[in-house]
Amino acid sequence: MAPVKVFGQAMSPNVARVLVFLEEAGADYELVDVDFQAKEHKSPDHLARNPFGQIPAFQDGDLVLFESRAVAKYVARKYKTDEADLLREGDHSEAAMVDVWTEVEAHTYSAALSPIVYECLIFPLMHGKPTDEKVVDESLGKLRKVLEVYEERLSKHRYLAGDFLSFADLNHFPYTFYFMATPHGALFESYPRVKAWWESIMSRPAIQKLSATMTP
Amino acid sequence: MAPVKVFGQAMSPNVARVLVFLEEAGADYELVDVDFQAKEHKSPDHLARNPFGQIPAFQDGDLVLFESRAVAKYVARKYKTDEADLLREGDHSEAAMVDVWTEVEAHTYSAALSPIVYECLIFPLMHGKPTDEKVVDESLGKLRKVLEVYEERLSKHRYLAGDFLSFADLNHFPYTFYFMATPHGALFESYPRVKAWWESIMSRPAIQKLSATMTP
Repeated sequence: MAPVKVFGQAMSPNVARVLVFLEEAGADYELVDVDFQAKEHKSPDHLARNPFGQIPAFQDGDLVLFESRAVAKYVARKYKTDEADLLREGDHSEAAMVDVWTEVEAHTYSAALSPIVYECLIFPLMHGKPTDEKVVDESLGKLRKVLEVYEERLSKHRYLAGDFLSFADLNHFPYTFYFMATPHGALFESYPRVKAWWESIMSRPAIQKLSATMTP
Repeated sequence: MAPVKVFGQAMSPNVARVLVFLEEAGADYELVDVDFQAKEHKSPDHLARNPFGQIPAFQDGDLVLFESRAVAKYVARKYKTDEADLLREGDHSEAAMVDVWTEVEAHTYSAALSPIVYECLIFPLMHGKPTDEKVVDESLGKLRKVLEVYEERLSKHRYLAGDFLSFADLNHFPYTFYFMATPHGALFESYPRVKAWWESIMSRPAIQKLSATMTP
């Protein structure tokens, strides 16, 4: 069976979101580079894979997908085992809690945290644009409120969706990994349960292996 | 069996997102008002349901949920029948296509369309704030590009995820409904397949019933 293909760079947080679940599953995959300098992301071949011209795109035989969270869920379903059932779709209540905290990641957590990653790392390093400290300060204010909610949640359960590791937890990896490389990573020290949760994610062999290919 | 409870107002697009799926299922539900003027959304009772103090929140017996797309998926799973299988989780490829276009709604379609709804309707009517035409113009530019992709997609399939109505289509209802009430609703006239798709959603009895409670 041909390995599945991921189009994009491991360095991109949204590509890494897909790779997390492939690495966790120990799946065989091929990472296919998309050359942004050569505008390959706007080429007919790539637009056929992702009509919005973004990364990642994904291919498994005839099935072609895009949107990182959708691709990551496909991977989690495809490689699901009794031991690694990250979406818990067999149980309506558990699946709902996984969905709740997956949506929180997209609309609340990363909405607060990712602007800090862009302003402190991605814009300066990739585009030579200085950090806008006003954006960083506003985002840090929002992020503190989010982390208070996470601290409370993780005082009741080992993981976000309950006492089981799920898609929701691992889905937080890419942006949080880069946040830790900004000057504001120490913010997590003020939230001991969040810090312990993050360390438990970082200690996973699949995450260790993937992070080594993402160093900012 | 006690009816499920939705906390919030039908007028809120994110509350309506949940109600769409309850109405489609013909489910018995209770809509519980949350009084924002009385700061009820920041009350301990509501924060126990939604720690971010937003609407909707949802209760089904002991299960308490928030995040509109997560709640809507729970409803779609709970009331799933052979005829109304909106998430298609029994088929990995179909489920993935539903996820792709559900994610597109959140991160691309509504990201372009909802600022127009806020600027033209919600801010002026609810907060007495004038429309920022610059935001509207930028968003219309983005939305045109998104609708081009939708037009192409709907030239190949009857619905977004394939030739079957899914969660992804119905999930577009709340913001699009309000967009049609802005001065820019006629934009859809330039995209005949998108227009026909939208009309097929609007013609559904459940959507007709719900829209009557949402009139801006």
